[in-house]
Amino acid sequence: MAQHGYDSGRLNLPFTGIATFAKAPYTPDWRVLDADVAVLGAPFDFGTQYRPGARFGPRAVREASTLFSFGHAGAYDHEDDATYLGPDVRIVDMGDADIVHTDTETSHANIAAGVAAALDAGALPVVIGGDHSVNIPCIRAFAGRGPIHVVQIDAHLDFVDVRHGVRHGHGNPMRRAAEQDHVTGLTQLGIRNVSSTAKDGYDAARAMGSDILSVRQVRRLGTQAVLDRIPPGATVYLTLDIDGFCPSIAPGTGTPSHGGFLYYEVLELLQGIARRHPVAGIDLVEVAPDYDPTGSTGILAAQVLLNFLGFIFHAR
Amino acid sequence: MAQHGYDSGRLNLPFTGIATFAKAPYTPDWRVLDADVAVLGAPFDFGTQYRPGARFGPRAVREASTLFSFGHAGAYDHEDDATYLGPDVRIVDMGDADIVHTDTETSHANIAAGVAAALDAGALPVVIGGDHSVNIPCIRAFAGRGPIHVVQIDAHLDFVDVRHGVRHGHGNPMRRAAEQDHVTGLTQLGIRNVSSTAKDGYDAARAMGSDILSVRQVRRLGTQAVLDRIPPGATVYLTLDIDGFCPSIAPGTGTPSHGGFLYYEVLELLQGIARRHPVAGIDLVEVAPDYDPTGSTGILAAQVLLNFLGFIFHAR
Amino acid sequence: MAQHGYDSGRLNLPFTGIATFAKAPYTPDWRVLDADVAVLGAPFDFGTQYRPGARFGPRAVREASTLFSFGHAGAYDHEDDATYLGPDVRIVDMGDADIVHTDTETSHANIAAGVAAALDAGALPVVIGGDHSVNIPCIRAFAGRGPIHVVQIDAHLDFVDVRHGVRHGHGNPMRRAAEQDHVTGLTQLGIRNVSSTAKDGYDAARAMGSDILSVRQVRRLGTQAVLDRIPPGATVYLTLDIDGFCPSIAPGTGTPSHGGFLYYEVLELLQGIARRHPVAGIDLVEVAPDYDPTGSTGILAAQVLLNFLGFIFHAR
Amino acid sequence: MAQHGYDSGRLNLPFTGIATFAKAPYTPDWRVLDADVAVLGAPFDFGTQYRPGARFGPRAVREASTLFSFGHAGAYDHEDDATYLGPDVRIVDMGDADIVHTDTETSHANIAAGVAAALDAGALPVVIGGDHSVNIPCIRAFAGRGPIHVVQIDAHLDFVDVRHGVRHGHGNPMRRAAEQDHVTGLTQLGIRNVSSTAKDGYDAARAMGSDILSVRQVRRLGTQAVLDRIPPGATVYLTLDIDGFCPSIAPGTGTPSHGGFLYYEVLELLQGIARRHPVAGIDLVEVAPDYDPTGSTGILAAQVLLNFLGFIFHAR
Amino acid sequence: MAQHGYDSGRLNLPFTGIATFAKAPYTPDWRVLDADVAVLGAPFDFGTQYRPGARFGPRAVREASTLFSFGHAGAYDHEDDATYLGPDVRIVDMGDADIVHTDTETSHANIAAGVAAALDAGALPVVIGGDHSVNIPCIRAFAGRGPIHVVQIDAHLDFVDVRHGVRHGHGNPMRRAAEQDHVTGLTQLGIRNVSSTAKDGYDAARAMGSDILSVRQVRRLGTQAVLDRIPPGATVYLTLDIDGFCPSIAPGTGTPSHGGFLYYEVLELLQGIARRHPVAGIDLVEVAPDYDPTGSTGILAAQVLLNFLGFIFHAR
Amino acid sequence: MAQHGYDSGRLNLPFTGIATFAKAPYTPDWRVLDADVAVLGAPFDFGTQYRPGARFGPRAVREASTLFSFGHAGAYDHEDDATYLGPDVRIVDMGDADIVHTDTETSHANIAAGVAAALDAGALPVVIGGDHSVNIPCIRAFAGRGPIHVVQIDAHLDFVDVRHGVRHGHGNPMRRAAEQDHVTGLTQLGIRNVSSTAKDGYDAARAMGSDILSVRQVRRLGTQAVLDRIPPGATVYLTLDIDGFCPSIAPGTGTPSHGGFLYYEVLELLQGIARRHPVAGIDLVEVAPDYDPTGSTGILAAQVLLNFLGFIFHAR
Repeated sequence: MAQHGYDSGRLNLPFTGIATFAKAPYTPDWRVLDADVAVLGAPFDFGTQYRPGARFGPRAVREASTLFSFGHAGAYDHEDDATYLGPDVRIVDMGDADIVHTDTETSHANIAAGVAAALDAGALPVVIGGDHSVNIPCIRAFAGRGPIHVVQIDAHLDFVDVRHGVRHGHGNPMRRAAEQDHVTGLTQLGIRNVSSTAKDGYDAARAMGSDILSVRQVRRLGTQAVLDRIPPGATVYLTLDIDGFCPSIAPGTGTPSHGGFLYYEVLELLQGIARRHPVAGIDLVEVAPDYDPTGSTGILAAQVLLNFLGFIFHAR
Repeated sequence: MAQHGYDSGRLNLPFTGIATFAKAPYTPDWRVLDADVAVLGAPFDFGTQYRPGARFGPRAVREASTLFSFGHAGAYDHEDDATYLGPDVRIVDMGDADIVHTDTETSHANIAAGVAAALDAGALPVVIGGDHSVNIPCIRAFAGRGPIHVVQIDAHLDFVDVRHGVRHGHGNPMRRAAEQDHVTGLTQLGIRNVSSTAKDGYDAARAMGSDILSVRQVRRLGTQAVLDRIPPGATVYLTLDIDGFCPSIAPGTGTPSHGGFLYYEVLELLQGIARRHPVAGIDLVEVAPDYDPTGSTGILAAQVLLNFLGFIFHAR
Repeated sequence: MAQHGYDSGRLNLPFTGIATFAKAPYTPDWRVLDADVAVLGAPFDFGTQYRPGARFGPRAVREASTLFSFGHAGAYDHEDDATYLGPDVRIVDMGDADIVHTDTETSHANIAAGVAAALDAGALPVVIGGDHSVNIPCIRAFAGRGPIHVVQIDAHLDFVDVRHGVRHGHGNPMRRAAEQDHVTGLTQLGIRNVSSTAKDGYDAARAMGSDILSVRQVRRLGTQAVLDRIPPGATVYLTLDIDGFCPSIAPGTGTPSHGGFLYYEVLELLQGIARRHPVAGIDLVEVAPDYDPTGSTGILAAQVLLNFLGFIFHAR
Repeated sequence: MAQHGYDSGRLNLPFTGIATFAKAPYTPDWRVLDADVAVLGAPFDFGTQYRPGARFGPRAVREASTLFSFGHAGAYDHEDDATYLGPDVRIVDMGDADIVHTDTETSHANIAAGVAAALDAGALPVVIGGDHSVNIPCIRAFAGRGPIHVVQIDAHLDFVDVRHGVRHGHGNPMRRAAEQDHVTGLTQLGIRNVSSTAKDGYDAARAMGSDILSVRQVRRLGTQAVLDRIPPGATVYLTLDIDGFCPSIAPGTGTPSHGGFLYYEVLELLQGIARRHPVAGIDLVEVAPDYDPTGSTGILAAQVLLNFLGFIFHAR
Repeated sequence: MAQHGYDSGRLNLPFTGIATFAKAPYTPDWRVLDADVAVLGAPFDFGTQYRPGARFGPRAVREASTLFSFGHAGAYDHEDDATYLGPDVRIVDMGDADIVHTDTETSHANIAAGVAAALDAGALPVVIGGDHSVNIPCIRAFAGRGPIHVVQIDAHLDFVDVRHGVRHGHGNPMRRAAEQDHVTGLTQLGIRNVSSTAKDGYDAARAMGSDILSVRQVRRLGTQAVLDRIPPGATVYLTLDIDGFCPSIAPGTGTPSHGGFLYYEVLELLQGIARRHPVAGIDLVEVAPDYDPTGSTGILAAQVLLNFLGFIFHAR
Repeated sequence: MAQHGYDSGRLNLPFTGIATFAKAPYTPDWRVLDADVAVLGAPFDFGTQYRPGARFGPRAVREASTLFSFGHAGAYDHEDDATYLGPDVRIVDMGDADIVHTDTETSHANIAAGVAAALDAGALPVVIGGDHSVNIPCIRAFAGRGPIHVVQIDAHLDFVDVRHGVRHGHGNPMRRAAEQDHVTGLTQLGIRNVSSTAKDGYDAARAMGSDILSVRQVRRLGTQAVLDRIPPGATVYLTLDIDGFCPSIAPGTGTPSHGGFLYYEVLELLQGIARRHPVAGIDLVEVAPDYDPTGSTGILAAQVLLNFLGFIFHAR
């Protein structure tokens, strides 16, 4: 039976050790990935329209993830009376995609290559951004591996087509996703207040099949009703912009928007998704540690990711 | 038809440009104001009783307001399916009232002069503090232009008469307002926990006609019932102390008090006020950016102000 | 009749003066304590497993407590229409227990001696940590003075028996408490997500009589039902780990966990306890000001402590 | 022979205990002062012209002073092979002067009263500001107890007479000092770059007998030659504006100016003054902890004050 | 004769007013520039290789520049007994070049257009970055207006030709400058320690005519000898990377390097240049306020720029 | 011939990738170490007497070291015209020693085991603290592998024998070193101002053969004369407490002391040591990132370590 890590020599407290994601093994050689989950950093932030710094998101989320790494043989949750992420779930940290300053297209291509490597290895790709534009190469990597339904948790619709020539900034990813053949639809949750997407973007999103719900609309509907709006049987790709959360718990992001989701609102949605849908991929973006002096945002990102991974593999 | 700003040459992202409020034109000459809304900074903070720094509130709120300035032709809100603050609403930034260190009375007089200039020009004055004592000259400027009913959102009653000779500190403004002939009443919302106002202040406020509600009382009543307590037909002046909000979203203030309002609670009250009442003036005070390392408080102030302005002119 | 402090010469604003707790008299000689409440700092943090710094918790909470010290003759609360902590409640600040670096046992013994001194003087001991391991000597000091029922508000169960030889770290206190003869039971509230306690710790806690409730379980039950689960007539000892609260209001702590209690949830529980039970002792732990750049966490700790003390002596 | 503090029961590490200055006894009753040195906080900052926050200077410097409080029987300095501040030098902390918000004159009067109390008790007054305007009441308290020669270490001349009615702001103190009969002259060291004092202020200062030297001029002259310019036999009052130092070591101040003094430059000047002159009083002003996230500025203030006090009593 | 600003109605303290550079008039319409100095923000930072955030450099330097804006009729310097930047020197703030996220080339072109507009108006262009890549369009704008000699103050040589396709990142500008026909040579001062330029870059720089000196080499030579190495009669363009300074005074930058210049070392070089050479243009880059919590770096940038401008126009 | 890293596929900018020291390979299995340099984290900080947080020193220094990792084939230094740390110098990162909270002795033993493993593998051990007490197990690991001469750079003598039972705190390491048979002597540089070591500690150090020099004494002697005082031919072990540096460049440490070394002062001493002595081991301690908001201290630590390693292997 699975042994606790601290029974085999090291106590391995959270503050010790190299900060890979969840202290998982670091696997820089992507040709030999052998894992259930492959975590990839995508430290790209030239796509931001206000505060930069999401390039340090991967390092911050990795560091925060060590808080949840007590070396147990899985994470026991007394509310669910379940043990998540036991030793049978093999996580590896791929390190980061190579980013080339001033060059958006090359950087994005490198991210796509990393996601493709994870998929080729049969692992669930988990990409830590970086700004939300890194979702563009993530979705692109699923070409020929779909269909997928994109569930987005975000303050902003990110549905700008092209403006001043920009097609691959952090205001564009959902438009780019909706254009893909292998994307069957979008559920866009948490959308609120003004952003770079103007009215025509909302019109286009709805025309292209998006289901758009604000935080208050999600609250009025309730978790179950929201889950029911996701097409049954669909394979879900989750893109989680940390600014979908309320700035009270996620201030460390480039474009915060008040009125966002609280922790359990998102957690219970994700638990529902994990129970009802296969999950093909995940990206979590826009953690900008320079605006997170308490570390609260990085901890939120790590806590949500680890719980979602737990739910997914518990459901498998 | 109104054109998006970015269609005429500049993309004008939030992080570019001089930080006037909402990137509105800067109009230092108050004799030529020609606008619907005139924003005035009141960087005075000698009236604080704990942490200083509200003098940098105007600059911080202006900077934060650029996040909401994407150059659209108005702000489309998908929840309301409405476009707010279109090009027909002309906003100008008056800059700041002149503040004289060590001299409360002169500084206050300069603030009053700015508000009067806005009123003379027929513009809605929006004053960004500064500590809450700046409300005193704001209300004073309405003398002869009333009557007004003051709606206060705040953690503290601010109803101290005079103590150790102080009549114009940030614990006194509501008492000073209640004394004015042109003020017909006060609705004081969010009041909670201990502050510089003692029991006799509460007694005096009630005797002078105040309606005092705590956060929990507002929650129990509900938005509609609270709105119903504001005298129908009254012209409203809103004074919004940022510490009326919960420190989770508004930590950057001099005297935070836990248990405050969340974002939508205030937003929906303001939307209700805008629908039911003429609004004659606004001040938003006590943003102290030195205690706001994430920028969350400044962003809240800007987001609330811009939404409230949107509601007001949508209702007109 | 009791006079306001500011009527006797000093205005004594929060930002002035030596920062003892609530600006209470400093009584370094523990042999002459004569008070209803005796506040002791326990600046020990070698028991932490992630971020350190709780050693500066006592200074931070004392500093924050000055915000609530306006020199009134008691704190008037308009919601309860009650005046709390009038001049009849005598509070003293004992200063800090002596802490010896690298030496857990001696440091803990010094804390126990301080609590014993307060108890010997007939005062209610209020200990400000320090990490949660300081609860171990606090409980130990009650030996021969029980029985007590421990109510814990915390994110973490802290029920590790011994691991790698560690019995007195901040993951162990509730196990140590449960082992004491003078402790009749534990009510553990707010427990959630993974921590250093593994499944066997939960099993042990339940076997030893703990009542464990998560934040969501507390919410579903409601305040009244939770209060009903505390054994009637029991003398309560409260141990409040600040990370029981949501990181949105308590980010300044070593091991934050999202999904915690909001302010009124805890306040109303404490008010209920004060009404229904004698309270024998209090510790408030894990405030780490290095992670609290806005001061929000220290202010929360001070606000909760002062309100709870008000409730306790109002009920007496 | 003098015993180390830690030999008598408490180790008393810097991070423990109530933060009075140098952990000296707190003596709130100024009528019973019995000490060689009396430390008074003057948390007044309405006189600042840029960044506020010097009101928290006294608390910050007190906290930092605990770093130098290891409980030895005096501070041994191996460079001088001397033991400073042995148990024969009795220091007390008077707490703070009472400050009245919005009211400069009353606040200043309270500071003057504190300094007078220290002088009446025969103690050396050490005032911790607050902004530099607190020097005005300090100097005023010496009326009838002079003559004194003021040595100022500062980036700014602070010699504005009156502007917009302001006579008691932080740009005015040296002008106010020079006007006093009991002030025989000023030595103004470190003055550099633009400030609120215009050319006419410099002309006036020179006309009134000031000796003005920039940092570079002090460096070119050398410590000895600078000391030689202070009138032999004069009783010195030192006013040390922390912004006299380079922002590299003193960033935490309201109006930093690059190009300031380094640590030993000031220390050696102070050591020379202590050797050659009686010192009648000291103020150290403009520490603004909100701009001192590393604590470096507060530590500098404490380290300089404690060393200067050591030099003074070593020379007596 | 020129009147002080505060004599004409407003005291205009540093903390009041819209933060344009030196509170100069804001001139968004570049077709009507009429000034001696035209300040342009270039908030571009996609060219950085480590910490981002220089996009907020222009706003930070503008804010800091208000500290030096006391409204005098020029800045009197007692060391030089000279008044700099009197009312005869007309400064305007052009606002920012338009930056397009993800698009380096368009952003750079917009910067070049702004510099060209300033030059067309006969004004001295002063560009505030942004990362050092913004120097590339600045130099480009001088095509046909040369020849110029570039003096660079920097920790890094920035002489990478092309790597992974990148030609316009912040490691490339000096190579790009050296390639221009209108650039006659480079003096590169402060260069030290490892950076993105490898040995071949140094070889190339020397081959293309660069004079490279480290901080220690500059110190050994002395200011005068360094000045003598700049070709006599050359028209100088100054590019000042804030990381040329020591991190003790300039921590707020993307790629700090210890061992940099102190304040007077640079100031005296600039004063020498202003006395001996016509100055055709200036850029000051790499101020990243997110890493400048004390504001020290922004203040340094503003203080250096204002002094250099003072020297230049004093020499004219 | 050695190829630049970025020629083989990845640009590998500093902000990308897992933060091992200098992006060296991570080698968690200490039995298979095969390297010239083995870097070990020692995240222990229960030995501190003021501000904690050195436990995060290893992660901070590793992160900062990535700034110097541009993927060149060695680091070219134009001042020395030398290429340091070419591909022939093989560095590995061992990760961290296992730390057990509340247990000093076990934690220290684990550190000693790591150093021993590096020595057994023939690698130069480089230990990153952690507080200065981690030097105790480092020196202990050299038992039987000496003799070594310890060169200490530090503000504090750290020569307390035993006080209140503490023998292994951060005030004790040099006393513990001096007691070892395999330590032939100590050179203690930078020692200044008061600390936990009292006069008797200085006397003991001198009696046990220490050469103690303050910063000013080192400056007066000059680098060469200081180097001459280190016994010729001695094998040197360097222990570098970051607080030996001036707080202007190293504020991020637990017990800062003004008046410390500047960058080149230490660098040139280290270069001299590398040229004249074999170096057997290195520890760099007391980096506390919570007090280093600009990152300047971590960058200093990384820059000094990488340069010293370059000097050592260049000299071999």
